[in-house]
Amino acid sequence: MITTIENPGKETWPQLMERAAKSNADLGSLVDEIFTNVANAGDEAVIGFTQKFDKVTLTSMEVTVSEISHAIENVSAELKEAITMAKQNIINFHSAQVEKINTIETQPGVTCWRESRAINTVGVYIPGGSAPLFSTVLMVGVPAMIAGCPNVVLCTPPDKDGNIHPAILFTANLLGIGKIYKVGGAQAVAAMSLGTKSIAKCDKIFGPGNQFVTAAKKHAQNFGTAIDMPAGPSEVLIIADDTADASFVASDLLAQAEHGPDSQVILLTTSKEMATKTLEALQEQLNVLPRKDIATEALKNSHVILLNTLAECIDFSNSYAPEHLIIATKDALALGAGVTNAGSVFIGNYSCESLGDYASGTNHTLPTHGYARNYSGVSVDSFVKKITFQNITEGGIQQIGAAVVCMAENEGLQAHANAVTIRLNKLSDAEY
Amino acid sequence: MITTIENPGKETWPQLMERAAKSNADLGSLVDEIFTNVANAGDEAVIGFTQKFDKVTLTSMEVTVSEISHAIENVSAELKEAITMAKQNIINFHSAQVEKINTIETQPGVTCWRESRAINTVGVYIPGGSAPLFSTVLMVGVPAMIAGCPNVVLCTPPDKDGNIHPAILFTANLLGIGKIYKVGGAQAVAAMSLGTKSIAKCDKIFGPGNQFVTAAKKHAQNFGTAIDMPAGPSEVLIIADDTADASFVASDLLAQAEHGPDSQVILLTTSKEMATKTLEALQEQLNVLPRKDIATEALKNSHVILLNTLAECIDFSNSYAPEHLIIATKDALALGAGVTNAGSVFIGNYSCESLGDYASGTNHTLPTHGYARNYSGVSVDSFVKKITFQNITEGGIQQIGAAVVCMAENEGLQAHANAVTIRLNKLSDAEY
Repeated sequence: MITTIENPGKETWPQLMERAAKSNADLGSLVDEIFTNVANAGDEAVIGFTQKFDKVTLTSMEVTVSEISHAIENVSAELKEAITMAKQNIINFHSAQVEKINTIETQPGVTCWRESRAINTVGVYIPGGSAPLFSTVLMVGVPAMIAGCPNVVLCTPPDKDGNIHPAILFTANLLGIGKIYKVGGAQAVAAMSLGTKSIAKCDKIFGPGNQFVTAAKKHAQNFGTAIDMPAGPSEVLIIADDTADASFVASDLLAQAEHGPDSQVILLTTSKEMATKTLEALQEQLNVLPRKDIATEALKNSHVILLNTLAECIDFSNSYAPEHLIIATKDALALGAGVTNAGSVFIGNYSCESLGDYASGTNHTLPTHGYARNYSGVSVDSFVKKITFQNITEGGIQQIGAAVVCMAENEGLQAHANAVTIRLNKLSDAEY
Repeated sequence: MITTIENPGKETWPQLMERAAKSNADLGSLVDEIFTNVANAGDEAVIGFTQKFDKVTLTSMEVTVSEISHAIENVSAELKEAITMAKQNIINFHSAQVEKINTIETQPGVTCWRESRAINTVGVYIPGGSAPLFSTVLMVGVPAMIAGCPNVVLCTPPDKDGNIHPAILFTANLLGIGKIYKVGGAQAVAAMSLGTKSIAKCDKIFGPGNQFVTAAKKHAQNFGTAIDMPAGPSEVLIIADDTADASFVASDLLAQAEHGPDSQVILLTTSKEMATKTLEALQEQLNVLPRKDIATEALKNSHVILLNTLAECIDFSNSYAPEHLIIATKDALALGAGVTNAGSVFIGNYSCESLGDYASGTNHTLPTHGYARNYSGVSVDSFVKKITFQNITEGGIQQIGAAVVCMAENEGLQAHANAVTIRLNKLSDAEY
């Protein structure tokens, strides 16, 4: 069960911030073998691995139009409506991330600007297994759509009958993702990274996955493929004072703990009573949870920590750099201003993480495992390159040319200087 | 010398787009050893490697205040003025990249926004060797300053007398970079990634370098350190029609070719006369170049390619995804609208790459080796995390809560649903 620590000395903080130990198994050679096979035998290799790992023999990997129609019929009206509403909120939030062109004249005649261009082909990996993550289809598919990515490829492992969960197909279809393949695991990542006859080579691969998928995404970077971000188990850190609701806090801890046995949840509180009440509510809620065993396992990696002040809580949180940070305190918004490292921040008692996981509009693909120190979550930015442009006139080069010649010569790069001098000379010749 | 190809069939394009072969030497084990030593022995190991590789015995790695004062005295007034002007233009351009907070109410009571937070500690690597790249200090230091990064660490190898080039120290000091260390190579990257007693552990490492530095930056990612982007040799692609100036085009090709023997330059033109004249001018300009040998070597990896139309040129360029793209044609701006993959685009006869390399205001740290397909150049974005926030009211959760419960249950994540239900129940209890 979750451990409780009272006022730990700062020297013990690093230990409390340790994430659940990662598997020491080196998957590099296995993943390398899968990539080599896919590089050599293409679709045939991918189908072979699907047979081996998913126990399904496929003749074609691509989901057909009739499978999609069938899936659409098999999703309840209620779920369709919920997904459609979530899609709209995600569109509302992410549309604001589209960068307008802002032309800057840095000096007279020197005009510079930046334009976004969609990444041409993006791959989306959606895990199979115990939870059909159609919400992740929204979280990757919507910003890809807003960015205007011309080609979106989706891979997800088939079940034992060779089918994909209907809600995944409904959501992909709702977003206009036409290319859906029944492929999972490292072989899906290899196919998207290298390209096969069926599956287009992707410039960037997005989406969560198990340790094989994670290792394969890392490996894909050796082939010029970009990835959304490094991955680790999911986590939440909650800061609560005595104005929080213990049953809410407990429910948020469990929502995170049910993700997987390696998930981590941390409660920081200035109130001993809040800590005690939360632990009581946690036990009560845990007992009736379908994924009780998973959550129980995750709680073993987890802590309730009493600290003296909310400032200390923020300090701890910034060092931990949580994927999700819930601030359930008086003046939560003001406290949030002090956050320097976090994936996504939930302000106040009613801003629970589940809302952001599905439908408030923010993205749920976020940096885990301390990567919130140096990475942002997925956004429209993740699907574009921002290309700089410059247009320099005759007058412009006359403004800055001499400085560039001086700098280039001092760096010992005479040809750089010459490219400017030859132009300046032509202009000064023309003047006489 | 550079090869000329007339109207190559599309099937031959991939071969023409191949970058200069990279060294097959696997530097992984050497870099791994350096990291292990630095992890175990800290500063002592770093000083030892400096002795071994740079042939200098240092008692302290940090550049002193008196060394900086001395350096400032030894930079010419002309160069100081040039660097200061370049700094201002880079500030002018990059300041516009600071994202304003844009609060979106995705549904009534559901408020979401994004706030940028500076990365806490960034490391800047500046190579030594033949060119003292003080311009790169500007290109990394200015956006770090604009982003508000509280700690900036700069490492650069000392010369044989244990000194750093004065222009590098002047520029770093101009930007307020106080922590400058005489360390180069993989040991500098290891120190910044792992941290030592002297050198702060960096969250993200920026800057160019030789193959050891590149391999070390890649390796640093295994320790949770982020890097600016994967690196490869520098390159330019020029599109020119008969309105271009052949001597300008030749000078731009050479400005790129002088970078290193593995640099690549490509000229695409619709005009046979332009191709011929450019080759003549190239030979003439090459003969008087101080770095003639390097440029000559680079030209062996390079091509002049005649194509039928400018549309074909853009098509080729987009597939090649050049780091630098110069468009020296009639209606260059209109042609630029068709660019999908490039690091930075230079529009028109007077927008030469050298201007952007130093002083127009745009950044010169750009994706090479085809990474312009899926990476952007360095910008203020590279120095911040964009954290999403949400503040959901009682009314807000009542708007979207039911949809979230439905989606969570359909994903089999009951605890996610419970976190919403427990709040909705409290609100509905309160109503009665």
